[in-house]
Amino acid sequence: MKLVMCVPNFSEGKDQKKIDAIRAEIENVEGTKILFCEADADHNRLDVTFVAPIDAAKQAAFNATKKAAELIDMDQHKGEHPRMGATDVVPFVPITDTTLEECVKIAKEVGKKMGEELDIPVYLYEAAAAIPSRKNLAKIRKGEYEGIKAEMGKEPSRKPDFGPDRMGKAGATAVGARMPLVAFNVNLGTNDLKIAKKIAKSVRHSGGGLRYVKAMGFEIKERNIVQVSMNLVNYQKTPMYRVFDMIRREAARYGVSVIGSEVVGLVPLDALVDSTDYYLRLEEFKKNQVIENCLWGGK
Amino acid sequence: MKLVMCVPNFSEGKDQKKIDAIRAEIENVEGTKILFCEADADHNRLDVTFVAPIDAAKQAAFNATKKAAELIDMDQHKGEHPRMGATDVVPFVPITDTTLEECVKIAKEVGKKMGEELDIPVYLYEAAAAIPSRKNLAKIRKGEYEGIKAEMGKEPSRKPDFGPDRMGKAGATAVGARMPLVAFNVNLGTNDLKIAKKIAKSVRHSGGGLRYVKAMGFEIKERNIVQVSMNLVNYQKTPMYRVFDMIRREAARYGVSVIGSEVVGLVPLDALVDSTDYYLRLEEFKKNQVIENCLWGGK
Repeated sequence: MKLVMCVPNFSEGKDQKKIDAIRAEIENVEGTKILFCEADADHNRLDVTFVAPIDAAKQAAFNATKKAAELIDMDQHKGEHPRMGATDVVPFVPITDTTLEECVKIAKEVGKKMGEELDIPVYLYEAAAAIPSRKNLAKIRKGEYEGIKAEMGKEPSRKPDFGPDRMGKAGATAVGARMPLVAFNVNLGTNDLKIAKKIAKSVRHSGGGLRYVKAMGFEIKERNIVQVSMNLVNYQKTPMYRVFDMIRREAARYGVSVIGSEVVGLVPLDALVDSTDYYLRLEEFKKNQVIENCLWGGK
Repeated sequence: MKLVMCVPNFSEGKDQKKIDAIRAEIENVEGTKILFCEADADHNRLDVTFVAPIDAAKQAAFNATKKAAELIDMDQHKGEHPRMGATDVVPFVPITDTTLEECVKIAKEVGKKMGEELDIPVYLYEAAAAIPSRKNLAKIRKGEYEGIKAEMGKEPSRKPDFGPDRMGKAGATAVGARMPLVAFNVNLGTNDLKIAKKIAKSVRHSGGGLRYVKAMGFEIKERNIVQVSMNLVNYQKTPMYRVFDMIRREAARYGVSVIGSEVVGLVPLDALVDSTDYYLRLEEFKKNQVIENCLWGGK
């Protein structure tokens, strides 16, 4: 079954009635399954992760955005997290038998519908960006709700991809497509932060390392060790095992061993299958040989 | 969600009407999901694999056995595969958040119900066996339907664990519990069958090797290689990676490399997670971090 994940963020993290109402718009669409839903009062932000067949995902994202526009007044909104809209971001992510290209198509359809039917300015971002500078969400959201509102209609670079070139109380929404993020950290058998930073630099794309790795070196004080903390932004093209083995080789150079690793949050089954394939040299292993993967009709 | 797998085999592989009727008894129980269903005309046998919450699995296994007893007359049955009953075997297998011990309990409950309500002699086997000699299905089924029928009521060793000490036209049923079998084969970079046989002997339990490994050496003629073909009868206690690494070390001793491996059929997600844990040295990775595993409510 073709499935996409959608990770919309809404600018309400305090009012439980409003939070429940937005969540209900997603749950009430047949076929959706919410995997994660967390409201943060300091950020005053609701972070939802749901999975659904393509059409259900489009509908649920649209319905929740419509509801958020009804309930949230950005002129009243305060929160630590950067934000520009009642529905701030709506990224679509390929999960089972769907591609990033399909998610780009979904983002453009849903973004257009939001702009036209909800009268909300929509910026396409990441893989769905129509304008290269909009690949980067931070650039789109620079100035946040208040700053963007002041410039829209005057500053051409602020013209949205869909919807009106002005802000209503619902603000603007970034709709996009991206690969699943895998938050993968590798722990080193040393407390020397310099080594973690050097290894992070060598493994990350910006430092000349692997194409789809973002990495930083951190101290884990309570364990008296250091960690290479990473986001793998395309685990298919830069798989976990390749990152792990590279870090192990780099660490060995400093006489340091890798003492462990951790995956933070959710990970697609593919990422585990890739690693098992690699280490066990599996030939032609198919994801639908995994019993749990068959249960939901995910094949 | 607690789930068990059940792999009943029925003595009908030709009559599609009867096959569909038996299958329907499983599908019609709320919560069941059939993963595999294959009728073999030569064996004249139906092989079904389904997954369900515990109560649904008990009900579906009972209903299908009842239906098979109505539709199949063992006095008329011929087939290459050894068999003793219309419903020949009903093994329960722990999958998600269930233990082998729970499956033993399920087997005893379902077996008792079959014996009392369906008047079918039931032998408890494998992990559910009440009599040690009945751990082995082949010993229970020795003589098959005709031979067992002739001895029941006379030969005390044939007395079933539940139900009458005589055969009706539905024959007898073996109900049991076992771990999921993982069919795991490792391919060697040589065509020397002696080496595959030596390695198989060294890795398997009967040869002094790993506790839960059954292994044999085979030729793969079309690829001009040899293979160590295995059943891992408890992948939790003897995990795939340990078997793989042991074979790799044994092969190196003969100057032979491992060129690949294969998993035949279904494998529990746990088995992949175990291998990823081991090779990536993952700390505290939970199966419910796998997106696909969350979709069916399996957590």
